[in-house]
Amino acid sequence: MDHVRYVAELGLAARTASRAMARASTQVKNAALLASADAIEADRPALLSANRLDVQRARERALEPALVDRLMLDDARIDAMIEGVRQVAALPDPVGTVTDLAYRPSGIRVGRMRVPLGVVGIIYESRPNVTADAAALCIKSGNAVILRGGSEAIESNRVIARCLAQGLARAGLPGTAAQLVMHTDREIVSALVSAPEAVDVIVPRGGKGLIERVSRDARVPVIKHLDGVCHVYIDATADADHALAIAFNAKTQRYGTCNTMETLLVDEAVASELLPRIASALSEAGVELRGCPRTRALAPQVVAATEEDWYAEYLAPILAVRVVDGMDAAMDHIARYGSQHTDAIVTQHHGRAMRFLREVDSSSVMVNASTRFADGFEYGLGAEIGISTDKFHARGPVGLEGLTSQKWVVLGEGHVRG
Amino acid sequence: MDHVRYVAELGLAARTASRAMARASTQVKNAALLASADAIEADRPALLSANRLDVQRARERALEPALVDRLMLDDARIDAMIEGVRQVAALPDPVGTVTDLAYRPSGIRVGRMRVPLGVVGIIYESRPNVTADAAALCIKSGNAVILRGGSEAIESNRVIARCLAQGLARAGLPGTAAQLVMHTDREIVSALVSAPEAVDVIVPRGGKGLIERVSRDARVPVIKHLDGVCHVYIDATADADHALAIAFNAKTQRYGTCNTMETLLVDEAVASELLPRIASALSEAGVELRGCPRTRALAPQVVAATEEDWYAEYLAPILAVRVVDGMDAAMDHIARYGSQHTDAIVTQHHGRAMRFLREVDSSSVMVNASTRFADGFEYGLGAEIGISTDKFHARGPVGLEGLTSQKWVVLGEGHVRG
Repeated sequence: MDHVRYVAELGLAARTASRAMARASTQVKNAALLASADAIEADRPALLSANRLDVQRARERALEPALVDRLMLDDARIDAMIEGVRQVAALPDPVGTVTDLAYRPSGIRVGRMRVPLGVVGIIYESRPNVTADAAALCIKSGNAVILRGGSEAIESNRVIARCLAQGLARAGLPGTAAQLVMHTDREIVSALVSAPEAVDVIVPRGGKGLIERVSRDARVPVIKHLDGVCHVYIDATADADHALAIAFNAKTQRYGTCNTMETLLVDEAVASELLPRIASALSEAGVELRGCPRTRALAPQVVAATEEDWYAEYLAPILAVRVVDGMDAAMDHIARYGSQHTDAIVTQHHGRAMRFLREVDSSSVMVNASTRFADGFEYGLGAEIGISTDKFHARGPVGLEGLTSQKWVVLGEGHVRG
Repeated sequence: MDHVRYVAELGLAARTASRAMARASTQVKNAALLASADAIEADRPALLSANRLDVQRARERALEPALVDRLMLDDARIDAMIEGVRQVAALPDPVGTVTDLAYRPSGIRVGRMRVPLGVVGIIYESRPNVTADAAALCIKSGNAVILRGGSEAIESNRVIARCLAQGLARAGLPGTAAQLVMHTDREIVSALVSAPEAVDVIVPRGGKGLIERVSRDARVPVIKHLDGVCHVYIDATADADHALAIAFNAKTQRYGTCNTMETLLVDEAVASELLPRIASALSEAGVELRGCPRTRALAPQVVAATEEDWYAEYLAPILAVRVVDGMDAAMDHIARYGSQHTDAIVTQHHGRAMRFLREVDSSSVMVNASTRFADGFEYGLGAEIGISTDKFHARGPVGLEGLTSQKWVVLGEGHVRG
């Protein structure tokens, strides 16, 4: 098949639908979301059986158990998917918001109005719930969306996409505002990310391999992060209870998330007091510790870290630990080995807290809080389409606002330029 | 020479300098700008003689007179350049501003802090004042800048770049925060725009050919607009005085700017009353009118417009004129032929004014005001690095804020995630 032509057709339909979406009122977009949620509810038996087919094929192809688990839907996961769509309907609509409308010396009033980006392309892997989650955010923000899910989830995704199209149609919006790519060839992805006339932004969701491939080929902007090598730095003035609680929580609350701490940095001045206690707690929780020589001297269970450990995003019960000589050394380490995702300082020193906030060049910087807070729900965005470590357009957790832009509005009463 | 390697060296120096720039206080950045302005003042004789050499070579190469005019510096132009740099020093510094810092249900406080983008690449043509203007905006916003001016202005640009480096050094900032590309080969541009490790964003300033070439080759984000095909639509309820004044001003106040009206749309209901008057005023001012048959029936001096006229950015005393059947037809015309730059409606009907603002998908939309207002100074940005018709990151006139991003800041008191 001709991938470029297929993408051009999808893109043309999405582009046309995006105009209707941009004009749609909040009420109509919410009606589409609630009707989509109802349609998923009504189609639950069809969705479960489509998903059984996907899972069966995945097992026949001997895909990894973790992948099969992410692929699988049960009633609880479908409940969560439906609830997620309804929650997006309940979020405030950013589109049309006018800010900073103020008179200028010329007499005109100038402000900025939030507008949708246009067409959003989502490229994701096995989890079929992304189809509903991501489409809901795009619909709410007045965008059209092209959904390119993993081939292993195609049957499940088809049912969900049908429900979205039904929901849109019931609200009087074009069903083509949420299109699923029906072909599972990889070449479709390359065609999609290199078609600026078809899509305005690509959001890849999945493993690092997918994101690297998409970024390399992309001719359209990409909202992404590659790694989450997050640091907690324990300063000399840290409250000991804070240090213990945050180090433990940032590592152990969940191991597989991008905002999990992967390296702990401890100021030499408090290392002998705090490191043995932190190391014991983490070891007891089953975390393998890999440390620098000074760390190992203080905690015998720590194995020797290699240079690669400082770069590692383990996504597992493993932690790299380093004793550093003060906050400059800590910030140098973060600048060199970090991924600009999320980094935290534990300190009671006001000046150092402020310096860390200002100087650490990451998408989230924290004082006396666990890196695990870095997500759209915790930040009050309601939901997130992804997390960006880039600086252009959106940085950090990206919610509805990141799926919009701002145009300038000017109000005059016959004003001309002198 | 090895262009890729040369760009990598420039990029590494810029990247290193950008860290110092990001940390620099407002006071230090302002000191660098004022010292740069002083250095240009002190080097005025050297700048004038370098510019004479550029102009002489340009004439020997028989370059277009318009280009030679843009290239030429005199005392008045140098005064304006120096004053421009001082004005940027007087603008508020966006960097470090924290907004929306608020408590979340978990007890943490979450907000957003403005941060520089990093390294900005400016690619421009003959006007040497861009060297000072653009560098000043980059320095003020805490970025490092790589300046790639036209080969015809190289002697002038060298003097200005030396002044910038002196100004930076006097304030204790790295002179490499503002580097001029010393080689004039075209291949440098291709190498620069495809080096994301060297530059974070490219701002091309110049003719459409330059911008198309840069956009086509770019592997880094580009802040740009291609065309300014701006429309004024005169609605049936327009105040006649507003309509006349705005149509006249939008076309004639300056012909060569991107926010000049290129097509006038008039509602059929008021065409017979207003079009003859507007056409006379414009004809008397020396504007050639090219119109649709209905326009020609009302104003005999109007010549027949072809399909190409609706797409044309004349940048000259020529105007396309069309009579349309109401605002839907006007908005359809703008959607089809426009360039998403700036479009205005003249109306006394509130509902139509609001619809136009909401539905016209341009970077600036106006009610009862001349399209000529679409620029950074008139909008209160103080200065602009360019105008963007894209939606990703910045849209419309781009000032200091468009050269920054936002990171998330989180303040806790030992908070961990539950």
